[in-house]
Amino acid sequence: MSGSEIEQLIQLLAKLPGLGPRSARRAALHLLKRRETLLEPLARAIAAAAEKVRACSVCGNLDTRDPCLICADPRRDGEAICVVEGVADLWAIERTGAFRGRYHVLGGVLSALDGVGPEDLHIAGLVKRVAEGGIREVIIATGATVDGQTTAHYITDRLQNTGVSISRLAHGVPVGGELDYLDDGTLTAALKARRPF
Amino acid sequence: MSGSEIEQLIQLLAKLPGLGPRSARRAALHLLKRRETLLEPLARAIAAAAEKVRACSVCGNLDTRDPCLICADPRRDGEAICVVEGVADLWAIERTGAFRGRYHVLGGVLSALDGVGPEDLHIAGLVKRVAEGGIREVIIATGATVDGQTTAHYITDRLQNTGVSISRLAHGVPVGGELDYLDDGTLTAALKARRPF
Repeated sequence: MSGSEIEQLIQLLAKLPGLGPRSARRAALHLLKRRETLLEPLARAIAAAAEKVRACSVCGNLDTRDPCLICADPRRDGEAICVVEGVADLWAIERTGAFRGRYHVLGGVLSALDGVGPEDLHIAGLVKRVAEGGIREVIIATGATVDGQTTAHYITDRLQNTGVSISRLAHGVPVGGELDYLDDGTLTAALKARRPF
Repeated sequence: MSGSEIEQLIQLLAKLPGLGPRSARRAALHLLKRRETLLEPLARAIAAAAEKVRACSVCGNLDTRDPCLICADPRRDGEAICVVEGVADLWAIERTGAFRGRYHVLGGVLSALDGVGPEDLHIAGLVKRVAEGGIREVIIATGATVDGQTTAHYITDRLQNTGVSISRLAHGVPVGGELDYLDDGTLTAALKARRPF
């Protein structure tokens, strides 16, 4: 392969999730063939992101403003905080449009295996936000994994005696999901949490 | 989702082959979390590629030099030209290390369906290179598709009466391939082209 600049580009593209060495080569060629429509705009977009995007000092969301758009929006319910593992989860909940409060991004989950302790996550910031008052409800939206649930329990413990109501996402059958393909744990949870028609 | 810079980055990443909207979001977050190790190096690599990489005026290969490293390398056999559809094919042949001549990149294949005629490909440049003399052999390495073979036949016609020897890649059983999984066309070609042990 020729040109160390091309080689360098391929090696960096191959580090993106979802791209391996082969698809990184395809992506690099795709970019080089579309100089005006893709390569140069992408160079500008990445440079702008590198320069401007920062973590919000309040909630940990990524934005070009600090506090981020969500924390700064007066139309959002400042009394409800949804606690998520990462920004991807925040985006997922935002896409639903079902939550109009604010967020707190933990930056991961507790994990004994990976050596992630409470001090490695943004838990102190959450406790501080709650202690400062004005919070009515904390919705813990960590993943339904062992580590996610451990983290949820830990946060619940830390927020005891603060007077805020703490809730978590419901477990159950995914909308559109067929029972036949569901794992036992989900089906058990859905049965236990059954609701009157 | 917050931050038009992030949105912009995601939309551009989603245009890369192999990345859809969802994986583009993952890739964008992956980049933003790895500012020093990935985001900024990628910004520099893309900017360098946009600025420096050009198509070689001789063969059409992409490189930061013109003529490209392969055309400029005196140790390579200047009398053999391998004709390929695109730069990806050139890279694939280079990775084998089995060819030490030079290349000619067509920039596509003839396609009546897509309205690609001879004047849309770099065929005139190839004819000119051969007419200028000093070429012993032209290896046509277009794909084993209908369009690829049509293109190969067209080029063979154009190079008639130039005195160069024209060859094409062998069809046959892929190395490591099991006969059971081969299509009939490949198996027929492999049988017809059988060689003595």
